[in-house]
Amino acid sequence: MRRLAMDRAKRLLFGSFLSSSQSSLTPGPASSCFPFSPFSSEAPMSLYKFPPVTVETINPKVKRCEYAVRGEIVSHAQRLQQELQTKPGSHPFDEILYCNIGNPQALGQQPITFFREVLALCDYPALLDRDETHALFSSDAIARAWEILDLIPDRATGAYSHSQGIKGLREAIAVGIAERDGFPANADDIFLTDGASPAVHMMMQLLIRSEKDGILCPIPQYPLYSASIALHGGCLVLSEENQKEIVEFCRKEGLVLLADEVYQENIYADNKKFNSFKKISRSMGYGGDDLPLISFQSVSKGYYGECGKRGGYMEVTGLSSDVKEQIYKVASVNLCSNISGQILSSLVMNPPKVGDESYESYMAEKDEILSSLARRAKALEDAFNSLEGVTCNKAEGAMYLFPRLHLPQKAIKAAEAAKTAPDAYYARRLLDATGIVVVPGSGFGQVPGTWHIRSTILPPEDKIPAIISRLKAFHEAFMDEFRDQGVA
Amino acid sequence: MRRLAMDRAKRLLFGSFLSSSQSSLTPGPASSCFPFSPFSSEAPMSLYKFPPVTVETINPKVKRCEYAVRGEIVSHAQRLQQELQTKPGSHPFDEILYCNIGNPQALGQQPITFFREVLALCDYPALLDRDETHALFSSDAIARAWEILDLIPDRATGAYSHSQGIKGLREAIAVGIAERDGFPANADDIFLTDGASPAVHMMMQLLIRSEKDGILCPIPQYPLYSASIALHGGCLVLSEENQKEIVEFCRKEGLVLLADEVYQENIYADNKKFNSFKKISRSMGYGGDDLPLISFQSVSKGYYGECGKRGGYMEVTGLSSDVKEQIYKVASVNLCSNISGQILSSLVMNPPKVGDESYESYMAEKDEILSSLARRAKALEDAFNSLEGVTCNKAEGAMYLFPRLHLPQKAIKAAEAAKTAPDAYYARRLLDATGIVVVPGSGFGQVPGTWHIRSTILPPEDKIPAIISRLKAFHEAFMDEFRDQGVA
Repeated sequence: MRRLAMDRAKRLLFGSFLSSSQSSLTPGPASSCFPFSPFSSEAPMSLYKFPPVTVETINPKVKRCEYAVRGEIVSHAQRLQQELQTKPGSHPFDEILYCNIGNPQALGQQPITFFREVLALCDYPALLDRDETHALFSSDAIARAWEILDLIPDRATGAYSHSQGIKGLREAIAVGIAERDGFPANADDIFLTDGASPAVHMMMQLLIRSEKDGILCPIPQYPLYSASIALHGGCLVLSEENQKEIVEFCRKEGLVLLADEVYQENIYADNKKFNSFKKISRSMGYGGDDLPLISFQSVSKGYYGECGKRGGYMEVTGLSSDVKEQIYKVASVNLCSNISGQILSSLVMNPPKVGDESYESYMAEKDEILSSLARRAKALEDAFNSLEGVTCNKAEGAMYLFPRLHLPQKAIKAAEAAKTAPDAYYARRLLDATGIVVVPGSGFGQVPGTWHIRSTILPPEDKIPAIISRLKAFHEAFMDEFRDQGVA
Repeated sequence: MRRLAMDRAKRLLFGSFLSSSQSSLTPGPASSCFPFSPFSSEAPMSLYKFPPVTVETINPKVKRCEYAVRGEIVSHAQRLQQELQTKPGSHPFDEILYCNIGNPQALGQQPITFFREVLALCDYPALLDRDETHALFSSDAIARAWEILDLIPDRATGAYSHSQGIKGLREAIAVGIAERDGFPANADDIFLTDGASPAVHMMMQLLIRSEKDGILCPIPQYPLYSASIALHGGCLVLSEENQKEIVEFCRKEGLVLLADEVYQENIYADNKKFNSFKKISRSMGYGGDDLPLISFQSVSKGYYGECGKRGGYMEVTGLSSDVKEQIYKVASVNLCSNISGQILSSLVMNPPKVGDESYESYMAEKDEILSSLARRAKALEDAFNSLEGVTCNKAEGAMYLFPRLHLPQKAIKAAEAAKTAPDAYYARRLLDATGIVVVPGSGFGQVPGTWHIRSTILPPEDKIPAIISRLKAFHEAFMDEFRDQGVA
């Protein structure tokens, strides 16, 4: 996206060539942006020589970027996993449990059958012409696949779509949003994306002009967004009253509200309910013109947890049509998001309804996943709270626990000696002893001098008791090793 | 990716909150990167007020970015298409033919059956346990789906993968590359991506440090890459001798060679053959340490044309492991590319082989697509060359023709009066008269003062004669309208 002044050093040659060009590789400055080619007679003859590319010569912004959930501890876990494969018995555990990232299907969660049926039919539409298909697929999945194919120009699931995504799928999503919120939604406001992350990047790229622009965000923040400047989560810490205050605050201060609403389906507290920021602001009487509001949604989270499908969307309201044209342009540079992800986004916003053949089995799968997550959250929360010097809030939604560690001074000193943050030290020791991968809280921008770890609640339910025993045994041994007169 | 100094203006509020945080929204500067939240007692009380977001206040780099293949002419075509739907007969044509972009399946090309069979089975693996499946799918598609599922940890096609992509799929791709080139390839050098575009962006982000860095590229260049700083194409203008010269040039000047090799399967000239830059440099005796070389491949092009699947990879050689770690970090920020695209990338690099049940039907589908493309290319090339003042090179590969227009001065003046480039004026008039969408050559960085259009060769073969008649009739009328004493 960055334009180059070509009057200085050259570092790259972008090779390969359009085959059918007319008088193309002939000499002459051909564009003000790229005034010479290596074949140009007007290229300067003495080229500035660069050393080979090294970490010192790459973009320093890339070097500075940190991304805790896939950082050093995960690389270490991958090494251990490889060692377990090549040398079974080489560690005091026989598998690595990745609790560092909300990736439910990697830990055994099964996909929702209806969604996968529809995706398979859209991938191979020839199935729809065959009788045998009725024995293998539910009737509403078949009907839905036909509906979706009819929304796609030429039924071409292998074609680039409109840069915002297939119009008919956006219309279906708008219907789903309107049903959820009780306020209208417009297909033209929806940009389908490969998950929420690219949508966040797109908005950051659009809105951040220089290092002088700032972003307010709650702490702890999700490290994707200090990597890419942002934050993550559900809407559950937040009461409806908090949300109203935030809306007022943004209005008053002229801020753009970027609402990460990817956990809208993950709510375990009986008395809590998801309210989108759009619903809140509309119910306060504010219309589309009163507040720039971007809502992000993803197929990776929710009860469906389809991380590998890379689907999602953002709903952009309160920005003028010429600003939206600029977003369209940014979206166009990567052409479009993947069509399976687009289809899945429309499905999660329009799941089977009462009366559909799949409805009951769909609801059973959904309820089982959500109630199991609630049980796992409670069991792990209780386990953390039972540990010496550890306090852990209730998980009312999303997929994570964020226990605070009150570590002995001796442990903090040991971490210092190992040139690492105390929570990173704890996480590394936990991994080496148990195979459990968690993320140190210091990657989430926590209050300096406080130590946390973040763990998902996603390990399979039948493994939770064993995990808790391993965790307790590790923690006791750790505290015994470092116990001293005071705690931090 | 850009880090913010937070000491100045704030423009955004990234809303929504991690649900299970421990003492999270409490006051206090929590990170040097985001020193205050709106709830922080230490946030400055007098906030700098910004006007609402306008085109004037967004990132100027976004504003400057141009992307011809999805620019103004395509927006206009979409409007015409909508008018045709709501008011049939409102234009002198009954459909819009999108020849602006290499999107074969949007113009009726059918996907390769084997690839889609495997994708459907991987999307809904429960099919593999059912007897009826054998009546619907070829035996080698079933076997391949099993193989692929066995490569994916826990067979979880809905899980985030390793940031570079699933290791086993990368190994399969490395085997495919090695067979193609006759030189070894390494799975650790491969980064699976959502098509070639995100891979190009990733490398640009890594390598470009500031506006003082430059990129050499041949002209005409593909506008994605002046949008994102790069270029596109096949390797066919280029003889093996040219490729060797480029390799030597890069070595001598210390340049990184970014090789866009997405058209490696699209070769129509009998005497031409695809040679990757890696094969060329290895056959010159250069090893991995001699030349930083990045090769981009995509599932969007080739005979398969699976644009909507957003799959692809880059093979990174000649960079040190610590630089590759930085690429891994950038790849991690978007977590991973979509798994269907990853699977498809492994399939196109390892299609059915002699003896497989699908082999003959697969080869028949492939040959029919490629020979039809060759016939269409020739028919359109001849048609362009038959037009007054138009010259068009032979299409030996890829999917495009790039005819040069020698326009009458009167037409150039008319374009000036319409405040547009002459080739953009021609393209707009062509669209309004015929419904055919082409891209003005001025978007490709052509030599100033020369005028071109770029058209794909992708319209369905049975429509080519009608397209050619419409094109000829339009061109004659256009020339009659503007014919004057001289041509440009």
